[in-house]
Formats: sequence, C-alpha cells, structure tokens
Amino acid sequence: MESLKQRIQADGIVLPGNILKVNSFLNHQIDPILMQEIGMKFKQIFDDQPINKILTIEASGIAPALMTGLAFQVPVVFARKSKSSTLDSENYHAEVISYTKHTTNQILVDQKFLNDNDHVLIIDDFLANGEAVHGLIEICKQAQCTLDGIGIVIEKAFQPGGQQLRQEGYPLYSLVRIKSLADGKVTFMEE
Amino acid sequence: MESLKQRIQADGIVLPGNILKVNSFLNHQIDPILMQEIGMKFKQIFDDQPINKILTIEASGIAPALMTGLAFQVPVVFARKSKSSTLDSENYHAEVISYTKHTTNQILVDQKFLNDNDHVLIIDDFLANGEAVHGLIEICKQAQCTLDGIGIVIEKAFQPGGQQLRQEGYPLYSLVRIKSLADGKVTFMEE
Repeated sequence: MESLKQRIQADGIVLPGNILKVNSFLNHQIDPILMQEIGMKFKQIFDDQPINKILTIEASGIAPALMTGLAFQVPVVFARKSKSSTLDSENYHAEVISYTKHTTNQILVDQKFLNDNDHVLIIDDFLANGEAVHGLIEICKQAQCTLDGIGIVIEKAFQPGGQQLRQEGYPLYSLVRIKSLADGKVTFMEE
Repeated sequence: MESLKQRIQADGIVLPGNILKVNSFLNHQIDPILMQEIGMKFKQIFDDQPINKILTIEASGIAPALMTGLAFQVPVVFARKSKSSTLDSENYHAEVISYTKHTTNQILVDQKFLNDNDHVLIIDDFLANGEAVHGLIEICKQAQCTLDGIGIVIEKAFQPGGQQLRQEGYPLYSLVRIKSLADGKVTFMEE
C-alpha cells in the first residue's frame, strides 16, 4: 500500500532496539482518513470471503478494525485485556505473552459475540512475534468459528511472527512489510 | 438521536446497580454503521466551531471518536491509561479515579499531539460521574488548547457528571440522556 509506505517514511520514527514509532498517525494520534483507506484496502483483499465479523484487540487495533468493519458493513469485536487470570464461563480466554514488555495479559471475548456460524477476519495494527494474533486465533478456535483471513497494517518481517503464521497455513496479508530498521532507516520488502 | 434510543431499547441490558450494558453495539462488539452515524451527528452539532482535533480515552472512546474525526476530517488523539504514576516530561498527565471500579488510572497524552493552537472536541462513550471527562479536561488545560466542545454518546443523567459540567460552563452535548434505569427499564429524558 503505497500511501502507507510514504506515510511511514515521512512520519515514522525508528528508535534503538528495532522499534518503529508510528504514534502520530496509527496508535496514539490516529489519522481517520488513512484508516478509512486501510479499511477499504482490506475489503478489496478479502472481498471473496464470506466475512461477517471483524475481530481485533484493544486498544490500537480498534481504529483499523472499525474502518474495515465499515467497509464490509459487519460488526467489529475487540478482545479486552485483563490482568486477572480468573476463568469464567461467559468469555473465551487466551493468554498473550509480550516478549518486549515481559508481561502476560489475559484476553477476553464475550461468548455472545462469536460462534460457529461466524466467518472472521482478524485485523491488527502490528505483527512482530505474533503473540497478539495467536491469542486471537486461540479465541477463534474456542468459538469454533471460521477464520477467513488475517489483515495486518504493518508487519515487521524481520521478526518471526509473519513467517510462522504463513507456514502454519493462515491466510495472512500485511499492507506493508518492513525488511529492516537498521541504521535508523525503514526498508520495505520488495513486493 | 432517535436511532440510538431505539438501539438502546432493543439491545441494551439493564443490570442491578444502575448498570446499562451496551456491549453488543458500543463497547465490546461495535456497530460501525451506527458509529458513523454518531460521528456525523457530532459533526452537525459542533459544526460552527473551528475544531481541528478530537480527544478521547482508550479503549471504548476510540470508535465514536474515530468516526467523529472522519466526519470533521481531523486527527483523533486517544489518551492512554497507565497504572504507573511516574511523571515524565514528554506527556501530559491526569488522574482518573473510578468510583465504580475503585481504581485510579493515570492517563497520558504525548505533548507532541496537543498544544495551544489546537481547538479540541472531547468525545466519550459514557458520562456518569464525569471522572474520565474531567481527566481529559485537565489534559487540555496542561496543553493550553481551546476546548470547543464535549460530545457524549450516552449520558446517565441521574448521576452528577453532566449537571456538574454544564454548571461549570462546558459546552456539553449528549446524544441521549437517560433519566432512569429503575425496574430494569430504560427511561430517557424528555428533549
């Protein structure tokens, strides 16, 4: 997605430790016009699937997921993060380990909002090691829904999450794939 | 907003303790079409103001705020919640006390995204005691921006937040105002 690449080059900030900060348009300040374009792009990519629900995780997945839901005209469900590890019978539960933050979050989705009739598209802002997406896949398994696609805004392709998901056979599409953040410079994968 | 009232009557669930659950369309599962309508309604209400930024708080404020930002074609900033009380010089900070959850959250906004040139519209999903909105007002004061409006999706008008904000002179508009949740029934204020 050319406009997204240009925006990352213009406004993304590369920090030591392979960190790409895009908080001026994606995950703290949000550009709603770019988000709408992202939603329409995901619609175009997954348009041949009978998707009836978008699934994401709070907080920074909500904006691209909402615009994708608008493009598909289907509901958006966001998994809630919870520090508590109490299991209850009302929710699906999965654990999301963050290697970067050294934390484990429980994520929850109310069982009312996902079931075996659903055809789900998972949307998230970033894919690096794939912890969040694997948590959402686990939720889909518990709900016995059909996972028709995984759409990622920015994939850090030098980290293993994307490759692993593709090897496992998941229909993953990332709008941009970053090959390297070396020397403070963003280099994209060739298309 | 008539369509929102009808949706609350159809899908809202009243629980003991004056709790209104609207997690099937607003704050867990989200209806993007309704959110777009809400964004356009806020645009209509605050259209005479020179608003150039929408401010909200994660996670459930993001959806109505994003659609309001789309309607105004301006950026949306969401305050992040943080358990840490460490103050730093990069962010504006405010405390949000939740009387219902008995917790205190620090909320943060990066100083890069709000300054004295900004004309801000605060958007949030619920207004009850007004803790979150007061936290966002405190952030606006620190940024020395102009607060041009406060837009709320659902106001629980039997709790003191709304009345207090109006007495303090803030330009507050709530799309629906709930008079009572007694006997498991949603009663709206007369317009």
